[in-house]
Order: sequence, then C-alpha cells, then structure tokens
Amino acid sequence: MRTRALASLIVTSIIGALVFVSGTSAKDDPLPSWNDGATKDAIVTFVEKVTDEGGDDYVPPDERIATFDNDGTLWIEQPAYVQLIFALDRVKQLAPKHPEWKDTQPFKAALEGDMKTLAASGEKGLLELIMATHAEMTPTEFKKISKDWLATAKDPRFKKHYTELVYQPMLELLSYLRANGFKTFIVSGGGIEFLRAFSQDVYGIPPDQVVGSSIKTKFEMKDGKPTLVRLAEMNFIDDKVGKPVGINQHIGQRPIAAFGNSDGDLQMLQWTTAGDGPRLGAIVHHTDAEREYAYDRDSKFGQLDKALDQAGPNGWVVIDMKDDWKQIFAFEE
Amino acid sequence: MRTRALASLIVTSIIGALVFVSGTSAKDDPLPSWNDGATKDAIVTFVEKVTDEGGDDYVPPDERIATFDNDGTLWIEQPAYVQLIFALDRVKQLAPKHPEWKDTQPFKAALEGDMKTLAASGEKGLLELIMATHAEMTPTEFKKISKDWLATAKDPRFKKHYTELVYQPMLELLSYLRANGFKTFIVSGGGIEFLRAFSQDVYGIPPDQVVGSSIKTKFEMKDGKPTLVRLAEMNFIDDKVGKPVGINQHIGQRPIAAFGNSDGDLQMLQWTTAGDGPRLGAIVHHTDAEREYAYDRDSKFGQLDKALDQAGPNGWVVIDMKDDWKQIFAFEE
Repeated sequence: MRTRALASLIVTSIIGALVFVSGTSAKDDPLPSWNDGATKDAIVTFVEKVTDEGGDDYVPPDERIATFDNDGTLWIEQPAYVQLIFALDRVKQLAPKHPEWKDTQPFKAALEGDMKTLAASGEKGLLELIMATHAEMTPTEFKKISKDWLATAKDPRFKKHYTELVYQPMLELLSYLRANGFKTFIVSGGGIEFLRAFSQDVYGIPPDQVVGSSIKTKFEMKDGKPTLVRLAEMNFIDDKVGKPVGINQHIGQRPIAAFGNSDGDLQMLQWTTAGDGPRLGAIVHHTDAEREYAYDRDSKFGQLDKALDQAGPNGWVVIDMKDDWKQIFAFEE
Repeated sequence: MRTRALASLIVTSIIGALVFVSGTSAKDDPLPSWNDGATKDAIVTFVEKVTDEGGDDYVPPDERIATFDNDGTLWIEQPAYVQLIFALDRVKQLAPKHPEWKDTQPFKAALEGDMKTLAASGEKGLLELIMATHAEMTPTEFKKISKDWLATAKDPRFKKHYTELVYQPMLELLSYLRANGFKTFIVSGGGIEFLRAFSQDVYGIPPDQVVGSSIKTKFEMKDGKPTLVRLAEMNFIDDKVGKPVGINQHIGQRPIAAFGNSDGDLQMLQWTTAGDGPRLGAIVHHTDAEREYAYDRDSKFGQLDKALDQAGPNGWVVIDMKDDWKQIFAFEE
C-alpha cells in the first residue's frame, strides 16, 4: 500500500504538472472570457499582490477567503430568482393536495402565474411559499427534488437548464482564485440546501463552503431510525445585514475578497473591504440587455442602488458585463 | 510567473514525495501512539477500505467527512470543561464592574469557587455565565481574550497550558485521516468562537471547519465602520440532538466517521453510522485515572452512559484510553 500510495502521489503530480503546462502554454490567461482592461487588471493585480511572498501585501493561504453571492453574481436571476421559479413549480405540483390554495394568497397568485400579486405579497409572501414547498421532508429528499427539478426545468428565453445559465467569466474567476490558494465560498440569500444541490457540480464548491438562508431542521428517532426533518420555520436569512453574520458564523474569518451584484450584498462588501491589508470588493453590473439583461436601481430582483453609489467611495470594482465580458455563458461559442 | 508557479509545483511534489518516503521508511505507522490491537485495527481497516479505489467500500474524497467532538475527545474536560474555567476566570476579572454579582447566583458561586452550587445551577446557570462573560464585544475582541487566556492559564494538576492537554493519539488520527483525503471537522457543544481561537494551531482545523454552540451576533455601522457585535442571546446549542442539526447546517452532508466520548455525542454517532456504506463510530472511554482521568456514567462533565450502552448494538468502537493509548499527551516522553 505504501508503494502504491507513493506511486499514485507521483503520478498525480506529473498529471498536475502536465495539465498546468498545457493549460498555460496554450494560452497564458487564467481569465480568457474577460476583456483586457481596468476591471481584469484590478482582479489580477490583487491576486498577484496577495500571493507574492516577498511583497508587503502578501496574505498567507489560510486567510485567502473569497465569498461570492449566487443570484445575479454566479448565475442568472431574471426574470425571477431561480429558486422562486422552483417554488412556483412546486406549488403547482403540490396543489392537488392543497385545495385551499385556490383561494389563499400567495398560493392563488402562484397557481395563476400572477407575478404582480406575488411580488406585492413581499418577503412574507415569498417565505410562505418557501415554507409550504420546501419543508416537511428530510434534507436528502429535498436535495433530490431540487436536483430533479434542475435537471429538467428550462429557462424560457435561453431554452437552457438553469445550471447552464452560470457566467463563464465567474467560473474562470473561481478557478483562478482556487489555483492561487483561495478558499471560495458561496454566501447567498438563497436557500442553503437548494444551493448545495448543484454547488459542487457547477461551481466546484463543496457543501460545507456554502452559506445561505435556511429553515429550521429537527433531529428525531423515527421508527428507530435517526432522521432529520425540515420544519416550516425560518432559521436564518442570509441577506443584507445577515451576510456578514452568516460569514462570521460559518466561515469564522473576514474574507479578503467579496463579489456581489445587488444591495443584498452591500454589507458583505462593506464588511470585507473594511478589514486591514489588501481587500477586493467587486460588483457585477448587469448592463447587457442583448446577451443577458440590463437592470440595476429599479429591478424587482437583484436591485442595485445603494451598493452602486457606494462602489466609488469604497474603491469597489464595478464589473460591466457588456464591456468586461467577452462571453457570458459557457454554451456561447 | 508561469515558470515560477510550475517550478514551485514540481518542488512541492518532490518535497511531498520525500516527506512521504522518509515518514514511512522511518516508521511505517501513522498512529504510533496507539497500541496494536482491535481498536487500532478497526480504525486502520476502515480507512484502508474507504480509500481502496477498486474495493466495494470505496468512498470518493468529497464524501470523506469525519467529525470530532472536542471536550473529552480531543482535549481534557476534567475537573471541568476548559471553557467553563475560562468563564469563571472572566467572572473574577469582570467582577469589579459588577458589584451586584456578589449577591447574585450563579455569579456568587463562581466568585467563591463554589462548584457545587454552580453545578446545581444547571445549564441555565452556566449559560448565564457564558452570556455575561462572552458577549458585548466583537468576535475579534473575543478571540483575542480567548487566545490570551489560553496562552497564560494552566491546568492545576498537569501544570500545563490547556492546549497542551490534547490527546496525542487523536492528533495522529486527525493527520492520518487528512493524509487519506478526509476533511476533518470539530463538532462540539463548546462555543464556536472559543474553539476557533486554537483549532487551527492545535488541531490543524481551519475556522470554517469548526461547528459549535453560538450566541447571536449583530451587524451594525458604528461610527461609519461596519462592525459585528456578540449579543447576550443564545443562537444555537450544538449538543445532543443539536449535533446532527449543526452538522447538516454547517457541513451539509452526513459524515462517514464520527468520534465522541459522551452522551452529548450520542445523536452524532447515531446519525453518522446510520448512513449507507462503510461507517465508523468511535467513543473515547476515559479509563486511565493514573495518566488522565477515569469516568463515565456518573461524571458531572462528559457523562457517558446511554452512548456506552449503545456502542455494542451499533458496532461503535470503544477506545479504551488505558489499554489502547501508548501515550496520552504530547509532552510525555
């Protein structure tokens, strides 16, 4: 076993070196989907600075924590949050068992596809939908339902699965940071268990590096079997002021880089960039109506207003999707 | 930069290989502080089984999650939990600012060192002590206070810092598991921020791989500066039925191996070993009054009763400290 493990270690190293060489010799650019310019420079300069062992701005690998919002930062959030579309599909699926939903809001609006009434029901209404469709099952069952839905549902405009509507430049950024010793985390207002249904496969981010909103979960012995059950009760909302709290609770140290796209990320950006030493805060600005969507201050989903005003004074990088990204999605060629 | 990174990769691989070779040729035993026998065999057999790519019991690295209780499993918990001793020292330190404590329980008992009354105040009393001594400061301030205390306080019996009273066989086990692709987590009833003050240095476990009990934390802008403040309000108790819940919330998947030592670990052991495929549950049984302590069913701290009864029927390994451990602490020679 000793020899075998050693052999395996050496082979792995050689393969690693070969992949590395071919990768860089083919194209010496870790961010090929990013146009050259100030935005890309700011990112690369930051990474080179914190990894330069001799430099003043060197940050040891243990402290290279980067956090990413998900909706609108790593994947699409228009015409509505993907998880909301999932919840609406679940309402339709569960409706036969809940005849009362036909006359009760927000379920009535959900069943009728009445997005105006739904939006008017506010956070309270949306949480009610989540509770009714995401609870009273085990985390394993919920993950299976989520995975099954993600494998079948398609976005009406792009005719693609939602997991294909992730931003190619951000995937490159995740890999680039990890190749430079960063630990990458998702810090999302979305549900932690929904995110975990695809974070490893799509982003290469393992379940324990996902921070998100959650409902309460209870442990019980059921027919002599230890079981976890998801309850229709809110546990934590990982949005706005909740993001630094979630980061502190889950990650236990302040990130040195944070990426967001909306006012929901404002406090995460503030918290991250107020720390000592080199810091990178960045906002994905949706400016490309043709290839994706253009929205900011007045958007119902992913509103970007205060955070955009604060970007300048705080030195946050504003990523202009239209100008800075050569390619938006992996499926474009 | 490309050549440098490549050179660094190759050098790292060579060093890795050399360390590996010299490590094994010097002494072909990853667990030198463990006596040969059934306990050590059970652990090694499990690890070899789940890492054997050709075998039926192979578990991919992504799923190799191992969880460790802390008090009584990784470090000492007698004559009282280390964090309780810390809280009592904090009460004495803060007492001049709280003259009312002289006449209020459980503070009076804490100040007088009256452990009987303190124990009688139960979980509620102990939580009151924690709240009064651990809150109303930032996580950074709390971490500094914890680190300072750990650097100075000493155990009266062994005359050692508490961070020296960690079990050498368990440190070897943590390294052995990590060398075999496991991700190791602490899952403790202790405070998450207190644990993070030493988990990286002492156990090689980074802050984000620590799951523990916590008080609530609030984000606020204070004099224009983003700030987190610890509140005197319980957030989560990561003990007993809380452990599988904490694991699910934080790690997001069921461990394949869990190590505990008390009834506080019962549900974590149940949850871990009830999963499909190869599983390892293990209990550190304190049987060595001479080199450490001997206690189980009647102990005030780290009571081991129900979990001991369930070990046999569930196939959990009971680690007999006296018989299975050649050495208890690193400082013994």
